[in-house]
Amino acid sequence: MENLDEQTLPAWWKDVQKALINEQMDTFRAEFLELHPYDQTQIFLAQNKNERMLIYTYLSPEEMAEILENIDLDELDPILTEMDARYASQVLGEMSTDDAVDVLNTLDQNEVASFLTIMEKEDAEDIKGLLHYEEKTAGSIMTTEFIAIEATMSIRESMLHLRKEAPDAETIYYVYVVNEDKKLVGVISLRDLIISEEDWTVADVMSDRIVSVSVGEDQEGAAKMMRDYDLLALPVVDFQQHLLGIITVDDIMDVIDEEASEDYSKLAAVSGMEKPDTSAWIAAKKRLPWLIILLFLGMLTASLIGRFEKALEQVPLLAVFIPLIAGMAGNTGTQALAVAVRGIATGESKNDGQVRILMREALTGLITGISCGVVITIVIYLWQGEFYLGMLVGLSILGSLVVATIAGSFIPILMHKLHVDPAVASGPFITSINDIISILIYFGMATIFMDLLIS
Amino acid sequence: MENLDEQTLPAWWKDVQKALINEQMDTFRAEFLELHPYDQTQIFLAQNKNERMLIYTYLSPEEMAEILENIDLDELDPILTEMDARYASQVLGEMSTDDAVDVLNTLDQNEVASFLTIMEKEDAEDIKGLLHYEEKTAGSIMTTEFIAIEATMSIRESMLHLRKEAPDAETIYYVYVVNEDKKLVGVISLRDLIISEEDWTVADVMSDRIVSVSVGEDQEGAAKMMRDYDLLALPVVDFQQHLLGIITVDDIMDVIDEEASEDYSKLAAVSGMEKPDTSAWIAAKKRLPWLIILLFLGMLTASLIGRFEKALEQVPLLAVFIPLIAGMAGNTGTQALAVAVRGIATGESKNDGQVRILMREALTGLITGISCGVVITIVIYLWQGEFYLGMLVGLSILGSLVVATIAGSFIPILMHKLHVDPAVASGPFITSINDIISILIYFGMATIFMDLLIS
Repeated sequence: MENLDEQTLPAWWKDVQKALINEQMDTFRAEFLELHPYDQTQIFLAQNKNERMLIYTYLSPEEMAEILENIDLDELDPILTEMDARYASQVLGEMSTDDAVDVLNTLDQNEVASFLTIMEKEDAEDIKGLLHYEEKTAGSIMTTEFIAIEATMSIRESMLHLRKEAPDAETIYYVYVVNEDKKLVGVISLRDLIISEEDWTVADVMSDRIVSVSVGEDQEGAAKMMRDYDLLALPVVDFQQHLLGIITVDDIMDVIDEEASEDYSKLAAVSGMEKPDTSAWIAAKKRLPWLIILLFLGMLTASLIGRFEKALEQVPLLAVFIPLIAGMAGNTGTQALAVAVRGIATGESKNDGQVRILMREALTGLITGISCGVVITIVIYLWQGEFYLGMLVGLSILGSLVVATIAGSFIPILMHKLHVDPAVASGPFITSINDIISILIYFGMATIFMDLLIS
Repeated sequence: MENLDEQTLPAWWKDVQKALINEQMDTFRAEFLELHPYDQTQIFLAQNKNERMLIYTYLSPEEMAEILENIDLDELDPILTEMDARYASQVLGEMSTDDAVDVLNTLDQNEVASFLTIMEKEDAEDIKGLLHYEEKTAGSIMTTEFIAIEATMSIRESMLHLRKEAPDAETIYYVYVVNEDKKLVGVISLRDLIISEEDWTVADVMSDRIVSVSVGEDQEGAAKMMRDYDLLALPVVDFQQHLLGIITVDDIMDVIDEEASEDYSKLAAVSGMEKPDTSAWIAAKKRLPWLIILLFLGMLTASLIGRFEKALEQVPLLAVFIPLIAGMAGNTGTQALAVAVRGIATGESKNDGQVRILMREALTGLITGISCGVVITIVIYLWQGEFYLGMLVGLSILGSLVVATIAGSFIPILMHKLHVDPAVASGPFITSINDIISILIYFGMATIFMDLLIS
């Protein structure tokens, strides 16, 4: 699928490729299965359909599952489709439940139903249990393959249990302790298990101060918790503290990156992050809705300026400073927006802090506004010899910067409070609003002080 | 340090606080040391200086070290200063070497030297070894507290060694296998150790396909590797494959977030991310340099429009569409910029892919440009009845969007190629450049077709 330079391929890649082309199944398996799943995936993705069909016959569903877990979700659909349906459902059954659920969530209802019908009953049950959690909650990214023991077991028994369960578990580095009702009562790290005496009981060693996350909690909250507490896995519980699953650190790394990318995309009005290999048509299709909206907001600005046509006819020089004033308002608004959005996202700005943030932004707007206003007044006076025009532009900048800074922080906070998707408060949207406000301030003041300007 | 609402404090917090205020050292230690280090840190940070001084006498340097590891680097300086110098250096010595190095990197040379002099010799040596690695490289975030064994050891011996080393090691979940020259030859996960027979040798079980990172590699490269290969720890080696240290997943989570935030800040021209509790003065000081630069770029745009004063006097209506055209150019430029910067950052766009990205962006600009151009021509014709003006604005939008899209992706790629800090290619900077280009296109075309417009 990718253009790979033959010369730079490592030796192991060439060996695997040769075995595949010569249809030597045994050599292929010996070489290929030695590799890390990530490298296996890279080789798999570089093959044509013929070779891929061959690979499906060479690898067991379990071996194939490891490869699929490393492939981006949006590339998986054609791969699952070209597989034999029974093989595909076996592969899905062998994947970690959280990954299998992610895959199924990208397919349509009918496909999901048909896969689940063919799948082994136990796997299908596990997956069905997870499918109904809302996207981006702790429940949607957890896996049910954890190891649970009872507090009365000895360390020796626990280690035996752990060895037995290890092949299927997502992590063995934390073992969770549950009571007879399956409620979470403690946790032991493998580290603690290993350094404990064999005849102690689990209750002696376990920690009963458990950090856990509720199943409906936002995935970002779970990520924050795992970072704060430096956890490799986080237990997920329901309201009665029943242990439902665990979230592992590899999934959280993706969440951290995803959430940061999302905020980033919003700031730039790119809906969903494009990959470098997205085609121009798809990229244009993704960007156009935003651009058309902004086009009409721009028309609004234009019609607004149109109302001041008389002022423009009297002092054509006024037009010269339109982009400067609108641009400055846009820039400060974007700065304030960026700070507010990240503050909300990382949970650093709590409810009582939001008034403080707004006050802070207003003051910041005032300081930067006065500074920029004074500079521009002096520059225009020295450059054009126009004192009143300089004052007009300077005061407009001051007014625009204060309003733009407040708007840039107030709008996302308001959206967040109203539980509206803050995507509407994206960078260019705030910029357009600030364009309009700043032009109103500029031409409003120009109209009032017109006598000074034309005298 | 923070405003905490008394009522919402959990019971354990109140218990600890009470013991501290009543100066009951034993109760305090019993309650406090039960807590997770992150919670200990939260309590510690909420104290006044008097209570903090008390805590220093209640806790051993080792216990205090765990708290310091959770505190933000920029808040640490006053804390270290108020501690007794000997106690402070002992605390530093007990911290993970990577964290201690991070702390020392924030202090000035003299302070570092004096701490290292008082510190235990062995700890000081470890830290000195790490202090000289360049910031943001794999070397600067690695720790030297890993567990290494030899290939000839039996699994039983390895487990004994591991139990002995566990208390000091940063992670025990990967054990690294080195030869007599201390070169890295293999790796075993604790998972594999546990499920192996005790009388096998390490060589039987270890994997010799090691994923490692070179000590001078960028920290972002290390993060990508750990995510791709789903590792909990990554060995760091020199050019001769000597094992120097390991990077653990908790440090990588911070790197992922830090790098994404950096790109984000650049897009918004906020230098270094502000925290919600930054004061208005500091926020203004950070944002002003950018705003002043952009102010002068705006003056450039203004002087450019000034050159077309004659056209403006003839057709004042021209001024009305300035913000629309400049705004659309700015928005598409920012979209292209965002995609290019993330592509470079995540390493998804390799060298040979960059020409393809530029071609793709040019085509995307053409598609979006034609779409928006046609829409605006029709709207202006219907709204103002001005066909030629509509054509002029439509064609200007088309030209601006194509150029702005190319500029938005070309400039960051060029910066990256020239190894210039891409911070200069931040969002508002690109927007200003695109302002200028789009206005040149607009007024240039207006001047050429002036006859049609005034007829």
